Amino acid sequence: MAILVVGSVAFDSIATPHGKVEHCLGGAATYFSLAASSFTDVRVIAVVGEDFLPEHEAVFTARGIDTRGIERAPGLSFHWTGAYAGTMNEAETLGTDLNVFERFEPKIPEAYTDSEYLFLANIDPLLQVRVRSQMANVRMVCGDTMNYWISSHAENLAKVLRELDVLLINDGEARMLSGEQNSVRAAEKVLAMGPKSLVMKHGEYGATGFFGARSFAGGAVPRPFRAPALPLAEVVDPTGAGDSFAGGFYGYIASQPELTPEVFRRAMFYGGVMGSFACERFGTERLQAVTRAEIEARFEIFREISHLDCASV
Amino acid sequence: MAILVVGSVAFDSIATPHGKVEHCLGGAATYFSLAASSFTDVRVIAVVGEDFLPEHEAVFTARGIDTRGIERAPGLSFHWTGAYAGTMNEAETLGTDLNVFERFEPKIPEAYTDSEYLFLANIDPLLQVRVRSQMANVRMVCGDTMNYWISSHAENLAKVLRELDVLLINDGEARMLSGEQNSVRAAEKVLAMGPKSLVMKHGEYGATGFFGARSFAGGAVPRPFRAPALPLAEVVDPTGAGDSFAGGFYGYIASQPELTPEVFRRAMFYGGVMGSFACERFGTERLQAVTRAEIEARFEIFREISHLDCASV
Repeated sequence: MAILVVGSVAFDSIATPHGKVEHCLGGAATYFSLAASSFTDVRVIAVVGEDFLPEHEAVFTARGIDTRGIERAPGLSFHWTGAYAGTMNEAETLGTDLNVFERFEPKIPEAYTDSEYLFLANIDPLLQVRVRSQMANVRMVCGDTMNYWISSHAENLAKVLRELDVLLINDGEARMLSGEQNSVRAAEKVLAMGPKSLVMKHGEYGATGFFGARSFAGGAVPRPFRAPALPLAEVVDPTGAGDSFAGGFYGYIASQPELTPEVFRRAMFYGGVMGSFACERFGTERLQAVTRAEIEARFEIFREISHLDCASV
Repeated sequence: MAILVVGSVAFDSIATPHGKVEHCLGGAATYFSLAASSFTDVRVIAVVGEDFLPEHEAVFTARGIDTRGIERAPGLSFHWTGAYAGTMNEAETLGTDLNVFERFEPKIPEAYTDSEYLFLANIDPLLQVRVRSQMANVRMVCGDTMNYWISSHAENLAKVLRELDVLLINDGEARMLSGEQNSVRAAEKVLAMGPKSLVMKHGEYGATGFFGARSFAGGAVPRPFRAPALPLAEVVDPTGAGDSFAGGFYGYIASQPELTPEVFRRAMFYGGVMGSFACERFGTERLQAVTRAEIEARFEIFREISHLDCASV
């Protein structure tokens, strides 16, 4: 089933202890699309500038991603500059040049209107709401947000949260959004704001899924689920790991007939798998080349490092 | 099989967002013993002062713990004062009164000399080495340490590390000990210092086991293993959670005929289980009352929250 993603397609300049890159393809919608494309059809809505060249578009089309919704505008694309040091768990943003992204008005191509799955990547919640209202018949809506929208656009964000099947944010964002320091209480408060389920990402420690009465059709409310992250000896560049997690997570869900607790758990593992690939090279390099066989092999490693009785499966 | 533990039996005064307690029984050896006592016989070597009353000793003996190695000295027992706030992942130490602990000279009762398992809780590495050398015939040695010994007593600590089958420390301590920010590289460096295996604890995110060529008899070196922690809506008091983890971990191992990779994995789950109980009440209250049936039920919850195909087992 096709996923429609709306978000940023951008260029990043990144410095990590392993080196630096200038103006490489990035953006939440890019990482998400590449990760999800291993599982299902993906359609992108974004805006780029004149620096977005055919070679950049080819990164998407080579993975079968539909780029008809990537609008060209005069000027330059969104450009983010950041650096990682120490444990590399958090980026230091050195520059954010919104450029054409500042006036982004998502337009949904006619050919996209039958998409059954919608992903609202981290953009202005006002735009997230607008896209969602134009895609009233989707089967499922997932979304992301960030500290800036939580602290400064709470009212619009509240409208987005009410529309979400799954909200994917990190623990710091969950604490900020809920005002609670304890993860479980934070999750309860966030779920009370609207999302049917919450995936709280913990960086190198994995992620926790939290469920409510509306998470699944029928049955008891499952306990939280903890998915591991792969211990990586070399985190070359963590940029986009969270968006890649979301892509693997949602791509797998969209490939399945129904969202059951077991599908959700497996989706969290696939999320971790895609996040781990994203970290292995600068930018999107690793995700561009990853094969489904590599993904399945790594999924089994995730099982092996977290399951009691599965030394090899 | 009996575990001999050497470490602190102390009193703690603790403030958390859930309340405060004054002068309640604590100390690494206390938490460790109580947690391990659900799995195997435990013998304690420690020193206490005149404020250690029969009611305190009864906490140990009620769980079948051998207290003949708890020496009485004139003066007061070790007293720690600390507070937790925010995410409660780290204590703020407000006071450390070593008292009789300052002149602690571990003496091994004759009746303890046939102990097969030795746990060196967090004390001066010089004392850890001394005890270890007097227990030359034990089957296995595990130990803990802390930032203070890592930064100021590196040479003595190095001698301890060479003696250990398993070192249990948290990620901050592993980074400090290795000088590496990346967890996997930190683990590699720590293992190169001597311990056959390393359990790196991540607080509310669980723990990771790292293995080397000498971790197990024969076979390939297993991948790291990630055990979850239980998402708790109410962390009343995290004091002693790490020591309780160690007690559950090592107690389970000592109860098994052989240390296999699977036993190690299950031991990490039992560690998490005992750590989660410790957090539910102030001080040792919860550990004093916990039953083996409660432990097994929670073990199954740990399985449920981390395994793909085990909604209930």
